[in-house]
Amino acid sequence: MSDAATPPAEFTVGLVQMACGEAVSTNLDTASTLIEQAADHGAQVICLQELFASRYFCQREDPGCFDLAEPVPGPTTTRFATLARDLGVVLVVPLFEKRGPGLYHNTVVVMDADGTLLGRYRKTHIPDDPLYYEKYYFTPGDLGYPVFDTRFARIGTLICWDQWFPEAARLSTLAGAELLVYPSAIGWHPAERATTGEAQHDAWRIIQRGHAIANGIFVAAINRVGHEGPADGGLDFWGQSFVCDPAGQVLAVGSVDRDEVVIAVCDRQQIERQRRAWPFLRDRRVDSYDGLTARLLDDQTGAGSGSASGGDR
Amino acid sequence: MSDAATPPAEFTVGLVQMACGEAVSTNLDTASTLIEQAADHGAQVICLQELFASRYFCQREDPGCFDLAEPVPGPTTTRFATLARDLGVVLVVPLFEKRGPGLYHNTVVVMDADGTLLGRYRKTHIPDDPLYYEKYYFTPGDLGYPVFDTRFARIGTLICWDQWFPEAARLSTLAGAELLVYPSAIGWHPAERATTGEAQHDAWRIIQRGHAIANGIFVAAINRVGHEGPADGGLDFWGQSFVCDPAGQVLAVGSVDRDEVVIAVCDRQQIERQRRAWPFLRDRRVDSYDGLTARLLDDQTGAGSGSASGGDR
Repeated sequence: MSDAATPPAEFTVGLVQMACGEAVSTNLDTASTLIEQAADHGAQVICLQELFASRYFCQREDPGCFDLAEPVPGPTTTRFATLARDLGVVLVVPLFEKRGPGLYHNTVVVMDADGTLLGRYRKTHIPDDPLYYEKYYFTPGDLGYPVFDTRFARIGTLICWDQWFPEAARLSTLAGAELLVYPSAIGWHPAERATTGEAQHDAWRIIQRGHAIANGIFVAAINRVGHEGPADGGLDFWGQSFVCDPAGQVLAVGSVDRDEVVIAVCDRQQIERQRRAWPFLRDRRVDSYDGLTARLLDDQTGAGSGSASGGDR
Repeated sequence: MSDAATPPAEFTVGLVQMACGEAVSTNLDTASTLIEQAADHGAQVICLQELFASRYFCQREDPGCFDLAEPVPGPTTTRFATLARDLGVVLVVPLFEKRGPGLYHNTVVVMDADGTLLGRYRKTHIPDDPLYYEKYYFTPGDLGYPVFDTRFARIGTLICWDQWFPEAARLSTLAGAELLVYPSAIGWHPAERATTGEAQHDAWRIIQRGHAIANGIFVAAINRVGHEGPADGGLDFWGQSFVCDPAGQVLAVGSVDRDEVVIAVCDRQQIERQRRAWPFLRDRRVDSYDGLTARLLDDQTGAGSGSASGGDR
């Protein structure tokens, strides 16, 4: 906390999940209304979903979509910083950042409850698979895994695809995060929804709950709803934004298809209690982790790698 | 595979979960019988639970318990290597290793289907909390995270507490594991079982399913059953050994309280399919992971860490 010697026992998180239309101004208005609703319900740290200002344009590679990007600070950060100050809440605001001519990032900006821009995070892990053509739009982030000391909680901000990488969650934890937020845009290919849809959603929830457990932190995912794209294709965004506690138990979860705010009260002492009960940070074997910066340990694979001595390295 | 140019489409895993009594010879006999049963059901890679030869003696600190340790090779490896050869199956055999006078490890030995000792792994992450006083008995492992090319599958072997550390699962994956096995001894404190028991078991299952998802590999946990210790205390081992696939879906699971073998057929091509669908290994940002070898990123915490520039590092 920036100005409290003894942090309060709790902080309250609000997640804004919403469908996005073609008109950016309407999306911004919807987000503002839902932020006010979340604040009315007591939320102190309010997070929007990935690229909330527009449709998820990465379903195609179109140079015209770069027009959606804007600088930081810029019009969107100005608008929401004012809202943060007026409501006295912390805002986590994702946007399509234009860093310079021909250089763009998938970014979140963190605004403190007095409207100060505390900083930004740029999405580190960039996906690229059918209908998620993000490598076309976004240069991989170069800001590491910062944490932000807001008025109400110390927040680590990661974005969507980052959620599949335990390394990112761990580094945010080691940097001191109490709460890790994952603004997201993930959905089903309609043709796959009936067959593998539930397994995909299950995996998404499990891996993020796993990060909470491995690290003893609160984790929140914020995901859009609604169908975007052609009627016979596109993506069905699966919503179901949730907050889980440092034991991985889900505290609150949103619907699969409605605009709504998801609210959860986070008991800060649970972080300490959980880490005393299961003291994983005490026992990390940092002397044995050098290989994590390798792409693949190729010399460990193939015939003979499992030597009789057990593969001393 | 050590001797096959094109590996077969499937391999079959068998997990042996059992209650342990005071008599080591009885425990060895029970394990042998269940191994034979698993082989009869088609299992090719058969894994025993952590320290299966004895009660879980780490509930107390007693110098007399070091008498349970034995060298590798030693009587237990000789007995089970013969069984592996006779049945034509791969065995993963945990034991209490006496490496030298005053130097002991919590170890697994991997035996190929011809009875060859392929190597050993020594538990890297050592717990120590009430009734799990392992730091008293076991020197932390010094063999890294080897993989073993057995006749039927390439196996990574981790042990119990290792399961809470995503780093270990990742390193085994980077070394080429198709299947990660976690021989375990985990249970409930009877006084906590009613209140937090289900959350604890849930967390245990989720984090291991999370490793399968993050890494696109098969994961198996093997856990003992039965109560050990005083009637008004001790531990209720929760069994429920399971195998999950590279999407994190559970293929087979054991009961909470019975001796049994758990069998699962693993479709090797699912590893490739899963990693093509969700290509996490393609996108790891190895240039940003240096901090993982730090104990804590202390200079990232405290006032001012979330700078306006986003905490460039």
